[in-house]
Amino acid sequence: MDVQSYMQGVGRQARAAARLIARADTATKNKALTVTAQAIERASQTVIAANARDVAEARHKKLDDAAIDRLILTPKTIAAMADGLVQIAKLADPVGEISGLKFLPSGIQVGQMRVPLGVVGIIYESRPNVTADAAALCLKSGNAAILRGGSEALHSNQAIAACVREGLTAAGLPETVIQVIETSDRAAVGELITMQDYVDVIIPRGGKGLIERLMRESRIPMIKHLHGVCHVYIDDKADFDKALRIADNAKTQRLGTCNTMETLLVARGIAQKILPPLCKIYLDKGIELRGDETARTIVPQMNLAREEDWYTEYLAAILSVRVVNDLDQAIDHITTYGSQHTDAIVTEDITRARRFITEVDSSSVMVNASTRFADGYEYGLGAEIGISTDKLHARGPVGLEGLTSLKYVVFGDGHVRK
Amino acid sequence: MDVQSYMQGVGRQARAAARLIARADTATKNKALTVTAQAIERASQTVIAANARDVAEARHKKLDDAAIDRLILTPKTIAAMADGLVQIAKLADPVGEISGLKFLPSGIQVGQMRVPLGVVGIIYESRPNVTADAAALCLKSGNAAILRGGSEALHSNQAIAACVREGLTAAGLPETVIQVIETSDRAAVGELITMQDYVDVIIPRGGKGLIERLMRESRIPMIKHLHGVCHVYIDDKADFDKALRIADNAKTQRLGTCNTMETLLVARGIAQKILPPLCKIYLDKGIELRGDETARTIVPQMNLAREEDWYTEYLAAILSVRVVNDLDQAIDHITTYGSQHTDAIVTEDITRARRFITEVDSSSVMVNASTRFADGYEYGLGAEIGISTDKLHARGPVGLEGLTSLKYVVFGDGHVRK
Repeated sequence: MDVQSYMQGVGRQARAAARLIARADTATKNKALTVTAQAIERASQTVIAANARDVAEARHKKLDDAAIDRLILTPKTIAAMADGLVQIAKLADPVGEISGLKFLPSGIQVGQMRVPLGVVGIIYESRPNVTADAAALCLKSGNAAILRGGSEALHSNQAIAACVREGLTAAGLPETVIQVIETSDRAAVGELITMQDYVDVIIPRGGKGLIERLMRESRIPMIKHLHGVCHVYIDDKADFDKALRIADNAKTQRLGTCNTMETLLVARGIAQKILPPLCKIYLDKGIELRGDETARTIVPQMNLAREEDWYTEYLAAILSVRVVNDLDQAIDHITTYGSQHTDAIVTEDITRARRFITEVDSSSVMVNASTRFADGYEYGLGAEIGISTDKLHARGPVGLEGLTSLKYVVFGDGHVRK
Repeated sequence: MDVQSYMQGVGRQARAAARLIARADTATKNKALTVTAQAIERASQTVIAANARDVAEARHKKLDDAAIDRLILTPKTIAAMADGLVQIAKLADPVGEISGLKFLPSGIQVGQMRVPLGVVGIIYESRPNVTADAAALCLKSGNAAILRGGSEALHSNQAIAACVREGLTAAGLPETVIQVIETSDRAAVGELITMQDYVDVIIPRGGKGLIERLMRESRIPMIKHLHGVCHVYIDDKADFDKALRIADNAKTQRLGTCNTMETLLVARGIAQKILPPLCKIYLDKGIELRGDETARTIVPQMNLAREEDWYTEYLAAILSVRVVNDLDQAIDHITTYGSQHTDAIVTEDITRARRFITEVDSSSVMVNASTRFADGYEYGLGAEIGISTDKLHARGPVGLEGLTSLKYVVFGDGHVRK
């Protein structure tokens, strides 16, 4: 297969399809989504058979257990996938909303209309359910999509793609609205991220290694998630119980997610009181603690944290702990070592809370709540294509709105510029 | 001068200053702006003397008249520059606005806070007034800025920069909030657009050649204006007088601006009636007309348009004219040849107007108004850093809001994730 001409063909078709899906009405898009959901439920056995091929090949290639775990589809995950499509069909259509329409001194009326971005390229790894999820979000937001899944999930993704095509056809939409790349050749990614004429935005979903490679090579704007070194700062004016509950939940509710706390900062004035009971919780749950000198004098079971620990997103049962003098030092620490993802303060002091949310430059800043809430569903977006650690366009959890843009609409009655 | 280490120093200082200006209160920022305005008025003679040096050098280097014209500062343009700063001081501060704060089923309260982008790099040509203007917009929106003007305006820009530093100092802000590059070495641009650690966004203002070069070489996201091939479509259900007025104004009110009409599309059903009087207006004003075969049979004074004319942004006294069958062909033409900048329809038919604003994918779409309105001031933004032809982040005229981003703020009362 000539990957370059294949990808150029995919791009050309996506650009043409984008015009049609952009103007498709809400009912048509919802029909495509619900029929896709039904097709996935009906094809459950076919999808599982395709998935079994992928899993067998992955075992043969000796992929690690975590990767195989992410790959496996079951009747339950397939039902969840179908349900996800139905949920996206139920969300309000973001396209066409006109906001802020105002008369101006010249007599013209100006507002902004929410419109699709055009063609979205999505590059992802392992989890085949992303295929259905990303397809649905792009479709609902009026975008054409080019999906490039991991080579290890090729057969699963193709089986899901067939269901999406069935939904599109039933709704009278071209199959090319959602195209799933059919080759596992890595050159396809290189083409995708440089086809400026055909692709408006790239959304990568994967590990830091993939993202960094794409940052170097992409010629197309990206909405991306780099990493999450999230902090909880327990202020000396914190409520003791809230602090205990939040610091526990932020670390241990789930270990491997990007919004999990990686570093706990504790004010000197409360450290002696809160660290012993809090660290007992962590140690009982099998969390390894790495503290600075002061923290270790309070909880001797801690290992010594090295400079690099403060920068590290563990995604594992490890937590860094540092005792800081005050809010200023906490903010300095977060500014120096953080990744501008999600950071929380626990305090009853409103002035400090206001300072924290103003001065910490992260995509989510929280007062008296667990960092684990940084999530599209928890924020009420209804669905999530990812969490952006960028500052431009979309920041934090990205839902349907993040897949759209605003254009100006102007109404006159023969008005001209003086 | 070692340009690389100079630029790295500028970047490091900008990053540090960004933290301070981000949290500066409104009164402080306004003081810096008003003192800068006073300093510019007071230093009027010094600025003009510096400008005279630039102009003399430009003449010596035989720059064309248009370039020299853009370079020249007069007491009047300097007063306008100072007034622009005062106007920006009067605009509402976008930073810190919290919107959409809502309770969610989990009990947390989630909203979005408007925050500065961080460090903005601006690359521009000729016009020295951009130095004051861009500095003011970045400052008011809480950003640090690195300004790189054209080498031909070096002395003028430095004289203005001194006034900006005076304003910053008077307000107790570090001078490094706004840094104007002091070397005309082109390598400085290469450094600026690749210092990802220090610069959050690049805003280029200049000709297509500059922008295309930066698109190839920049490793930092850009808010950019590429070109404007703007259309007016006169529908066969247009009001005759409105059509005449708008088509005249869109082309002839100013020839060299990006929102000037470059191609006129006329529906077959009205062409015979409107083209003769309309083209008489154009020809009387010295506009060269380049039409398709049908248009030329109606107005024989037209030259024949070639394929490349439909793609061309003339920025001059030339207009392409095409007779189209209907709205569909007009939209097809705009989609094929347009630059997604600003396009207008003249019609009394509401269904066609609705189709036009929905299906034309441009940063501004207009009904019965002149394309010349596509402008930050005319849209009520109060000021404009430029017009974006990008789809991500900011689209169309970009004011203070375009220099900011939204972060999520979450308030709980000890809430944890279940």
